Amino acid sequence: MEPALDPQAKKTVLRHVSYGLYAVTAAHDGDRGVFTANWLTQVSFEPPLLAVSVERDSSTLPLIRASGVFAVCPLAAGQRDLAGSLGRPRAKAGDKYETLGLHVHASASGAPVLADTLGFVACRVTGEMEAGDSVLLLGEVVEAAVFHDGDPLTMREAGFRHAG
Amino acid sequence: MEPALDPQAKKTVLRHVSYGLYAVTAAHDGDRGVFTANWLTQVSFEPPLLAVSVERDSSTLPLIRASGVFAVCPLAAGQRDLAGSLGRPRAKAGDKYETLGLHVHASASGAPVLADTLGFVACRVTGEMEAGDSVLLLGEVVEAAVFHDGDPLTMREAGFRHAG
Repeated sequence: MEPALDPQAKKTVLRHVSYGLYAVTAAHDGDRGVFTANWLTQVSFEPPLLAVSVERDSSTLPLIRASGVFAVCPLAAGQRDLAGSLGRPRAKAGDKYETLGLHVHASASGAPVLADTLGFVACRVTGEMEAGDSVLLLGEVVEAAVFHDGDPLTMREAGFRHAG
Repeated sequence: MEPALDPQAKKTVLRHVSYGLYAVTAAHDGDRGVFTANWLTQVSFEPPLLAVSVERDSSTLPLIRASGVFAVCPLAAGQRDLAGSLGRPRAKAGDKYETLGLHVHASASGAPVLADTLGFVACRVTGEMEAGDSVLLLGEVVEAAVFHDGDPLTMREAGFRHAG
């Protein structure tokens, strides 16, 4: 039997998937990128691997591919506005590091991580899979640092509604 | 410069990744499997795709591969004990559908979904990627239904500590 997809039920159930909010960063050849991600999960303990879904038209995606590295910085509870600002496309927001006055920590692995977040893990890209309107990147954690104590920001706390 | 990985910092930062808790189910040839997942995220809007990380030794993984279908049922706030019970390996817990007296809804796509959860999306497997100690499955949402109103269960609410 061929199942039928009820679009409203699909949306309602997908909105029950819980997400945090993260700044994902990368740099290559003097160019820096950062965006807000929520489609992100650890996928292996040993080795420690993360997967993150990146929109095909992301201006940071070419920097991740060229450098082979991305960093994930969990945003802290209260950083809702920062999550919103980092989510704007570069074409409209310009170099967000400059326009938002972001404090950057230069990681050993090359990604320009955000010093005002809870910390970061930097990941070396180990795989990539086409995923509809996005690209699913797999990366192994190769560097980590804690910047601040605190609780992470969640989609729910931010009041961001997942489209589903 | 080769980055150094601080294991404690890695653990602390990875524990800032936010997760929900889901029952993932599959069936093939009369055999039924169910386990508790938290490493799960949507990865594309159009088409709607989910990714879920499954441990290599999961007894449900062969059922997913054989049937080409898995279902994701978001657990409701308050279903902490169910999340714990569904997380036990089949070798110890037996057929969890029987031993736990689970109420099953027979989905059109063939996955035996749990009627006491918030609802489900059934996914047709579209890809698979090796991911360290786990396998990352990609699936397209092909069926969905809402069973109950309510808030989803999160790792944080359940008090389950992510190993990181």
